[in-house]
Amino acid sequence: MKNRHLLMIPGPIEFRPEVLQAMGAPTTSHVAGNFTTAFAQSLNQLRQVFLCPGGQPFILAGSGTLAMDTAAANLIEPGDRALVVNTGYFSDRFATILERYGARVSQVRAPAVGDGPALEEVGAALQAGDYKVMTITHVDTSTAVLTDVKGLAALGREHGALVLVDGVCSVAGEELRQEEWGVDVALTASQKAIGVPPGLALVVASPRAMEAFRQRKTPVGSYYADWTEWLPIMESYAAGRPRYFATPAVNMIWALHVSLGQILEEGMPARFARHRHVSDAFKAAMGALGLRQVPLRPERAAHTLTAAYYPEGLDGTVLGHIREAGVILAGGLLPEIKARYFRVGHMGAVNAADILATVGAIEQGLARAGYRFEPGAGLAAAQAVLLRH
Amino acid sequence: MKNRHLLMIPGPIEFRPEVLQAMGAPTTSHVAGNFTTAFAQSLNQLRQVFLCPGGQPFILAGSGTLAMDTAAANLIEPGDRALVVNTGYFSDRFATILERYGARVSQVRAPAVGDGPALEEVGAALQAGDYKVMTITHVDTSTAVLTDVKGLAALGREHGALVLVDGVCSVAGEELRQEEWGVDVALTASQKAIGVPPGLALVVASPRAMEAFRQRKTPVGSYYADWTEWLPIMESYAAGRPRYFATPAVNMIWALHVSLGQILEEGMPARFARHRHVSDAFKAAMGALGLRQVPLRPERAAHTLTAAYYPEGLDGTVLGHIREAGVILAGGLLPEIKARYFRVGHMGAVNAADILATVGAIEQGLARAGYRFEPGAGLAAAQAVLLRH
Repeated sequence: MKNRHLLMIPGPIEFRPEVLQAMGAPTTSHVAGNFTTAFAQSLNQLRQVFLCPGGQPFILAGSGTLAMDTAAANLIEPGDRALVVNTGYFSDRFATILERYGARVSQVRAPAVGDGPALEEVGAALQAGDYKVMTITHVDTSTAVLTDVKGLAALGREHGALVLVDGVCSVAGEELRQEEWGVDVALTASQKAIGVPPGLALVVASPRAMEAFRQRKTPVGSYYADWTEWLPIMESYAAGRPRYFATPAVNMIWALHVSLGQILEEGMPARFARHRHVSDAFKAAMGALGLRQVPLRPERAAHTLTAAYYPEGLDGTVLGHIREAGVILAGGLLPEIKARYFRVGHMGAVNAADILATVGAIEQGLARAGYRFEPGAGLAAAQAVLLRH
Repeated sequence: MKNRHLLMIPGPIEFRPEVLQAMGAPTTSHVAGNFTTAFAQSLNQLRQVFLCPGGQPFILAGSGTLAMDTAAANLIEPGDRALVVNTGYFSDRFATILERYGARVSQVRAPAVGDGPALEEVGAALQAGDYKVMTITHVDTSTAVLTDVKGLAALGREHGALVLVDGVCSVAGEELRQEEWGVDVALTASQKAIGVPPGLALVVASPRAMEAFRQRKTPVGSYYADWTEWLPIMESYAAGRPRYFATPAVNMIWALHVSLGQILEEGMPARFARHRHVSDAFKAAMGALGLRQVPLRPERAAHTLTAAYYPEGLDGTVLGHIREAGVILAGGLLPEIKARYFRVGHMGAVNAADILATVGAIEQGLARAGYRFEPGAGLAAAQAVLLRH
């Protein structure tokens, strides 16, 4: 399927061989004893990876979009007010989904592309309205903008809103302490820092979120996303008893179990630190090559991916040169600046060698596109950070 | 994941090694050229497998339940009338889903477990009401009851209803000629006769269904199931241009592409005939052993699975004995008779050796449970049918 090119996009990423082996292992029954155990353990592992020991995990066949869909569908009733902290493409999407289920959505928008709303502004908005939920995009995959989930969640809690965090490009890479920070729903997809091929939607809901769900007066708008159906299944598998609603994605869950085990073996603090380290190295290289990042300030820049503008006069054709040099990167996604920037994923099993290989390929691509810079400047800058440990 | 036991449940089934290899192949980008080609070809292959050359295919990460959800969510608007031809557990589910999206549902129920409503009865119901859609469960996985889709679809068309067929346990195994029979939506999941591990929802919609979707006055109730989002994605990949809505399940789609290729290499008429042949052999064995089937008449019995009652005095413990003899079967699912019967899947890559191994294991299990029969009688009956070709 893939040749030996390094896949350095913001998901799917390079997966570990043990995870791919689990994907391709002969499928067992969805009610087999060992699969039930793997499912139960995966649910428990999710609580640990999300740092939410008291949370209710959900593992569903689907995508990150489905994970967002379940959060909105189960917690919104027609007429509920929702506040979207908008940092880009995926915040827009959350607003769209909330509206689909009848929410009256207000948004606090970033003052500029690459920025995010200030805490004070969000606090003022929360003060002004009676919001049932507030959504935050932890890392917007379109811009690499990082939000201050800890600060925003505290504000949301203070004003009595349920705090929903789109962690698709953050969970298991970017620091996210769901329970400690008071996040009510955190969600992600399998193919990002979780390290499993695309196909699973992963959600952990706080007791407060589950209570809000139980207090609903109206049925959930979507059938497939309905926790009424899924909760008994998750509870039953967690207790070691298979139960049927929809056939679980056996191979994908087996692969998830393997990857979650690897993640927890590394440990969450070490994993967050490693993502920060390789990200710092990569971003130092971009700086040394004179490439400006989309996030306007370092504290707004994610550690799971980097979004950087092409140098003046260059465009997306440089990605072709970089691919020829052996590394696959992603183009822009945010409509306003789509053609002017590119994105590099560095999460999951990413290591120092991947970072250097990627920086090296970018140097080669830039050189072939006619950009003038000191060859090796990016590599040296990355290496300096990588060796600092 | 699985030991060498034969997995003979009605999904997941035994998958071909080439399909499992694709599942575990190093993941490429969801916008890579070769993945885009594989996706485009899979969409086209689905049309051929569903025998619906003019249909619009959808490939979504999810389950068969999601496939049902998309059909109902996209074609039902609040107040629309729907007629459910009810043959068991999964017909009940279709009624529930239709109601979730605001349908006023009427049902024509089977006179008894193992039977289905007569064509005349369905015709009379269609005559009496103004139905926008009619649903048919082609093979009810809970009972192995087969419905006459061809006859029912003709009736539905005659009365102007859109004909929705739950083909989860039929597509690519049981004869289903979507276009010729006038079926507007046929749907399935990956893990049955399609021969791919669980995790994909597969739908093919007729031009008439797509036109009804386009004529909607209200937004689709579910976001993740909404064809408004998915149609441009499917059309774009089909034209060789990747486009983003939700990250496609790359490995699963790669595996689907491999399996659909194998299915079409066999050819649909040959595949239907093979399923009929191994099913006839297996059912002959059950008869020779004195086991009564859940479907009341041979023409009501599916060819993708068999549902049979335990002999008088035996119960689910016999499945443990059969597993010890090397074959995994499934218990009952329909609440009314759940403890009294078992289910055997024989679809996809199933072959004569699987059938004989399964019959042999059932004989061993029955003998260990104390049931009296002539050893080998089931094997001989199956073999007689298998050799008749």
